[in-house]
Amino acid sequence: MPHINVDPNLPGIRALMAFSPATAEPMGQLAEILLRSNDGLTRAERELIATYVSYLNDCFYCHNSHGALACVYLNGDNAVVEQVRQGYNNAAISDKLKALLNIAGKVQKGGKHVTEDDVAKAREQGATDKDIHDTVLIAAAFCLFNRYVDGLAATTPTDLSSYPLRAKQVAEKGYGSHIYTSPQPV
Amino acid sequence: MPHINVDPNLPGIRALMAFSPATAEPMGQLAEILLRSNDGLTRAERELIATYVSYLNDCFYCHNSHGALACVYLNGDNAVVEQVRQGYNNAAISDKLKALLNIAGKVQKGGKHVTEDDVAKAREQGATDKDIHDTVLIAAAFCLFNRYVDGLAATTPTDLSSYPLRAKQVAEKGYGSHIYTSPQPV
Repeated sequence: MPHINVDPNLPGIRALMAFSPATAEPMGQLAEILLRSNDGLTRAERELIATYVSYLNDCFYCHNSHGALACVYLNGDNAVVEQVRQGYNNAAISDKLKALLNIAGKVQKGGKHVTEDDVAKAREQGATDKDIHDTVLIAAAFCLFNRYVDGLAATTPTDLSSYPLRAKQVAEKGYGSHIYTSPQPV
Repeated sequence: MPHINVDPNLPGIRALMAFSPATAEPMGQLAEILLRSNDGLTRAERELIATYVSYLNDCFYCHNSHGALACVYLNGDNAVVEQVRQGYNNAAISDKLKALLNIAGKVQKGGKHVTEDDVAKAREQGATDKDIHDTVLIAAAFCLFNRYVDGLAATTPTDLSSYPLRAKQVAEKGYGSHIYTSPQPV
């Protein structure tokens, strides 16, 4: 049960955003820019970074929500999403994304864990300043979102079949206010 | 040296925000709402929560920046700021704020560390749903900001006398775009 009185019909972060629309708005804007830009990293790569960090933070709602979104952008290839969760080194992804996921995993532990060597290895695989910036900020942002969801014990749907339906909605409409104001797909 | 090519004349997160104004805007808006609202928690209490979490995350730039801001709002009482850093139980602050700092410290470790008992104890001291919400979100937001700063190895001014000057600027003008577009006070 959530630690504060929120709408029981809204899952996960959506209920928290409906409780506090003033803070929901900039958080939605940040997610929109970080996760739906196609400048540099693809949407699939951005959602895979979000999924991986959320998995490391053990946030069931977030890693399933963003894993389902990555799957949409990967045209239904859930095997890659699961490979990234379980240890991206064996995943069918680029070496550049592997080097960036290494950085994301360091950020999840704490910013100072990222070394010059980690960054140099990502550059060797073609990562730009913007790719490195966006990777660190996506990873950091999910250290916020995951803690917001679990720190307030937001409702976590356990029926995994509900996540793809909500992911389809976000893939179509983005991270705007509809995610906490509209009727939910499940 | 920062991991990416940013303006060397801007300290800490300011250089990162100048590098990426598109993401800086919603982050500044979130900070403005979370840290400068007087609805429920005071500005001093909000900045003390930010300072405490940044200290736990060992982010020198953030805990000194926000500690200096808390000091401004406490009319120069830096002793309280230092007491909160070193273990808030002996600090000259309300029992309500102590209970909320306990929750903030749990969020810093991970959202699931917050227990029903932690929340019940805060309520016993008069904390409302909004106070609990804002505490969790401030703590979570600084798990983002701290990782953004240290994950990209942003420049950290070591001269402690520079922090109060920048804090005075933020106390006057808020967390808007001036913090990364205007000439810096130091």
